[in-house]
Amino acid sequence: MIKTTKSLIYLMILALMLLATLPGWAQKKYVMVIHGGAGTILKANMTPAKEADYREALTLALKTGYDALKAGKSSMDAVEVTIHTMEDSPLFNAGKGAVFTHDGKNEMDAAMMDGKTQMAGAVAGVTTIRNPISAARAVMEKSEHVMMVGQGAEQFAKQAGLKIVPPSYFYTKDRWDGLQRAIKQDSVKAVLDHVSKKSNLLGIKNRDDKFGTVGAVALDQAGNLAAGTSTGGMTNKKYGRVGDAPIIGAGTYANNETAGISATGWGEFYIRNVVAYDISAMMEYKKMSLQDAAAAAIEKVGKMGGDGGLIALDRAGNVAMPFNTAGMYRGTVTEDGEIEVLIYK
Amino acid sequence: MIKTTKSLIYLMILALMLLATLPGWAQKKYVMVIHGGAGTILKANMTPAKEADYREALTLALKTGYDALKAGKSSMDAVEVTIHTMEDSPLFNAGKGAVFTHDGKNEMDAAMMDGKTQMAGAVAGVTTIRNPISAARAVMEKSEHVMMVGQGAEQFAKQAGLKIVPPSYFYTKDRWDGLQRAIKQDSVKAVLDHVSKKSNLLGIKNRDDKFGTVGAVALDQAGNLAAGTSTGGMTNKKYGRVGDAPIIGAGTYANNETAGISATGWGEFYIRNVVAYDISAMMEYKKMSLQDAAAAAIEKVGKMGGDGGLIALDRAGNVAMPFNTAGMYRGTVTEDGEIEVLIYK
Repeated sequence: MIKTTKSLIYLMILALMLLATLPGWAQKKYVMVIHGGAGTILKANMTPAKEADYREALTLALKTGYDALKAGKSSMDAVEVTIHTMEDSPLFNAGKGAVFTHDGKNEMDAAMMDGKTQMAGAVAGVTTIRNPISAARAVMEKSEHVMMVGQGAEQFAKQAGLKIVPPSYFYTKDRWDGLQRAIKQDSVKAVLDHVSKKSNLLGIKNRDDKFGTVGAVALDQAGNLAAGTSTGGMTNKKYGRVGDAPIIGAGTYANNETAGISATGWGEFYIRNVVAYDISAMMEYKKMSLQDAAAAAIEKVGKMGGDGGLIALDRAGNVAMPFNTAGMYRGTVTEDGEIEVLIYK
Repeated sequence: MIKTTKSLIYLMILALMLLATLPGWAQKKYVMVIHGGAGTILKANMTPAKEADYREALTLALKTGYDALKAGKSSMDAVEVTIHTMEDSPLFNAGKGAVFTHDGKNEMDAAMMDGKTQMAGAVAGVTTIRNPISAARAVMEKSEHVMMVGQGAEQFAKQAGLKIVPPSYFYTKDRWDGLQRAIKQDSVKAVLDHVSKKSNLLGIKNRDDKFGTVGAVALDQAGNLAAGTSTGGMTNKKYGRVGDAPIIGAGTYANNETAGISATGWGEFYIRNVVAYDISAMMEYKKMSLQDAAAAAIEKVGKMGGDGGLIALDRAGNVAMPFNTAGMYRGTVTEDGEIEVLIYK
């Protein structure tokens, strides 16, 4: 009798183990990874209150994404609602908290990509769209284009029914003060450049104050990856500068066969290295692991003199979050609901 | 005596063979490759006069690039002056011959990349810069940025001392008539879309009339590669649409270790496939030849439903010019001065 019960229990364990190896079971796995920007984020410069604010905002973002994934929503849906919470927070350089351009405007960029179809959408230099990530998605889903810029993109977003706000919505005192500091520092640099032989019409010396981006990558219950990135760009930026965030392949990329990636950092280096797609290419062509490919991509940026970080997620649920700065706001949540939020190294 | 002379001759031949294998000798090789757009270019639709015009313009472009390379100029210089001739011609959809947007404007994009340094520059949505390719180069060389869009980019170009023209400079009757045809065709399509379930705010049915881009890739005597692309985008484009031409990694890429690439075609597919960098990645990571990598990249575009072509050149002087359309304006010239111009398959 006891022997039969034992045998039955063994059999049940065996059956469960077999079940767990089936693709359908394995793909019940779902993951959300986010970042809120990389830079000189040092514990020494952080107040406990400020750190608590960031942890709370990152936790809210992850919880929002988790709820969507748990409810069976697509990774595209989960990425979009997760990024909304960060765009609506004044803490991150995206949406509400976007930094100011030299002319005192908030010009935002965003991109999304669907790993299942490799469909993608992006907007750059928009000033009136409350949630630029949704505009990027609308470009992907409601047009035959991938990228729209400036007033044209705003007109499209309006026709697509997105929330339009007056540019004043994006005013925050913190970012305005940041612009004043940057103008002061940059003008000192401009004078120095004027003296130096090689004249630079632009300077990026105080870059730690300047960058910051939000992003999310999700794996849904159907096993599909999606990635999104949203940013206010660079404090005191001039001349309609566009960074890597809205560039498919540079700051944002997703492909079910390899990985979903969202980057943050000194955008110019990410564009020149085609960072996001490079990770996918190293995985596909060199058969590198997600971890190794993500680390190699950040190493290349560093060797060239750039800095920043990125988040990457593959279909098996592996996560990589490398960065070569002092810190990166980041976090993950998996199907068990356990939320992890990290800031420093 | 005869024996000694013979031995001497053998020795000299041997010495010359050794010399030829030295990098310095081998790199006296120089090559210029250009394209003037891919599409439904059929001999049946071409008048002999029109074909002669195109052949003449392509020959001028190649001759200009050849002269620069022969004079020992850098591949960056050669690509720039070569593209100038095509931008200044009304025949190509770039600069003077740029197509019209829905609003009757000429909005141009361009990018350049230096294979030696992987420095890059790009502009998008500019309307007053006579030679957008030079603006792209100025962004690379005179700013710390990679990409600038719209009025900001124009302001920068002006400060950088580039030729600024009134928007009317870009008017050509041919392109204006093309816009009227496209508006008519697109509005028919818009009505059809309205009836269909999935509403598309934009349609690209008559794409053969719509695309076209110019590009050049050069290998100079110092063994450095450079690539550039310039375009007026898409006839009747709306909403500040940006294609692949100014996207580093999509329409333009250069790296001495792999290849220089300039693409032309249905830009959205080139962005989603990160076509230009993908060729470089296949060469670096899969050790594919330039020919195989270029062919594979066009095949991927085709599989996804897109069409177009590209030119690619590696440091050994190998050239690939694949396309999956009926024709592509293209040509090459090497250090022997022999110019080859091709249009059809």
